[in-house]
Amino acid sequence: VITSVHNERVARAVRLGRRSAREAERRFLVEGERGVRDAVRAGAVEQVFVTPERSRRSEALLAETTAGGTRVDEVSPEVMARLASTVTPSGIVAVARFVDVGMDAVARRPPAGAQPFVSMLVRVRDPGNAGAVLRSTDAAGGAAMVVSEESVDVYNAKTIRASAGSLFHVPVVREALPEDAVDRLRGAGFRILAADVDGRRDLDAADLSGPVAFLFGNEARGLGSLEAAADETVRIPMAGAAESLNLAAAAAVLLFECARRRRPGRA
Amino acid sequence: VITSVHNERVARAVRLGRRSAREAERRFLVEGERGVRDAVRAGAVEQVFVTPERSRRSEALLAETTAGGTRVDEVSPEVMARLASTVTPSGIVAVARFVDVGMDAVARRPPAGAQPFVSMLVRVRDPGNAGAVLRSTDAAGGAAMVVSEESVDVYNAKTIRASAGSLFHVPVVREALPEDAVDRLRGAGFRILAADVDGRRDLDAADLSGPVAFLFGNEARGLGSLEAAADETVRIPMAGAAESLNLAAAAAVLLFECARRRRPGRA
Repeated sequence: VITSVHNERVARAVRLGRRSAREAERRFLVEGERGVRDAVRAGAVEQVFVTPERSRRSEALLAETTAGGTRVDEVSPEVMARLASTVTPSGIVAVARFVDVGMDAVARRPPAGAQPFVSMLVRVRDPGNAGAVLRSTDAAGGAAMVVSEESVDVYNAKTIRASAGSLFHVPVVREALPEDAVDRLRGAGFRILAADVDGRRDLDAADLSGPVAFLFGNEARGLGSLEAAADETVRIPMAGAAESLNLAAAAAVLLFECARRRRPGRA
Repeated sequence: VITSVHNERVARAVRLGRRSAREAERRFLVEGERGVRDAVRAGAVEQVFVTPERSRRSEALLAETTAGGTRVDEVSPEVMARLASTVTPSGIVAVARFVDVGMDAVARRPPAGAQPFVSMLVRVRDPGNAGAVLRSTDAAGGAAMVVSEESVDVYNAKTIRASAGSLFHVPVVREALPEDAVDRLRGAGFRILAADVDGRRDLDAADLSGPVAFLFGNEARGLGSLEAAADETVRIPMAGAAESLNLAAAAAVLLFECARRRRPGRA
């Protein structure tokens, strides 16, 4: 059992709490049984740290991890407290390699008849929102998520937690240049739909068929000038006195309406 | 300009940061231009504190506030820092009276042909989730929100912020006994639909017509035994590898699907 935060492997892992260290090493931390499990199954994990207590409760996962040749070290609760970002650590943390992909992997022409949809975050700042949109993209059956430069880091602990494992299920592009990403998606046959509370087209009347990319903008400033690059701006019909929806809620409504229309025999 | 946190009105307001003080006084704090404006228009505000800088930028709102006979005090940035819950205070905070209503106001038989829908949170713990569901309920055109005992306090600063003013637009019942609230809603003609990732009925096939109450359970434990009291359990069709949706995202999908089906000429 490692009891010192000066242990070399522990110290290197602790540094990954900082974005600059993550970028330099192209590695990040994943916390909690579910996240670690999904990361292990995605083949992204290099090392797992676990408390003795958690070790007993996560036997199956740890057996699966070591069977794949990945190192597991037991650490004291004090060391775990340094590795974890939460106040009540779950007792298990993994060091994982970056899993993001390039635009090439996403902006490719789909097979004839396929109707993939992707979401794109443009300068979204809140880690909870980014993670929740990723989770909704996954659950709705989205093909990928593109995250622009000047957005929150998808490898931020809060984003990963909010994504509930979806970071390892859905291809994610990060640090994309917004105009370039839009051009490349359009070039691959995607129609570009900008979500906007004042959008020209009501969601009920919007054409969501075919390959579609949904653009979601900054929580306060929206999409700004990028909106002009969209093929259509779409608004969610609202009935009450609320001026707008939370970004993650708006994304869920749009993505699941898109999924609904793709289902045969829909209501 | 008040510069001391020992000023009597300031000290009383600061205490409202604690739930026990809020319950004792039946008053709470609202921060930010939008929240304060909605609270003033709802007739709920007793007192406003504002920094000199903010005072210049919020002239119209402050004129409206004082015209209604409500006291406005200028306070120093240091005093504002104590009144505000955020790291970067917006410079305006109001003391408001509780706005929640009793079950009588919600569990009443709607007029013939009316199809109101309400949301009900059962032991929901996350303030951001509670506020986001309230905002979505408002935006979807929901008639009310019921919050059970053992849920997060709707007068928590984070909940109010996440509700983006909807606390003042939608009637909210708090501290409801779950079984009793379900009985009373059913007695008033509402069908009780429990949101559950493993629900028996697919959303596409679920009957959302007529007066409907949507039950949303605890983030980790769901609805528990209360689910048996529902007329139907409804699941959102999911396509990807995600095991579930974020509570606020799931609520947005259900509430907006309900609103969509109530619109004439829907897609």
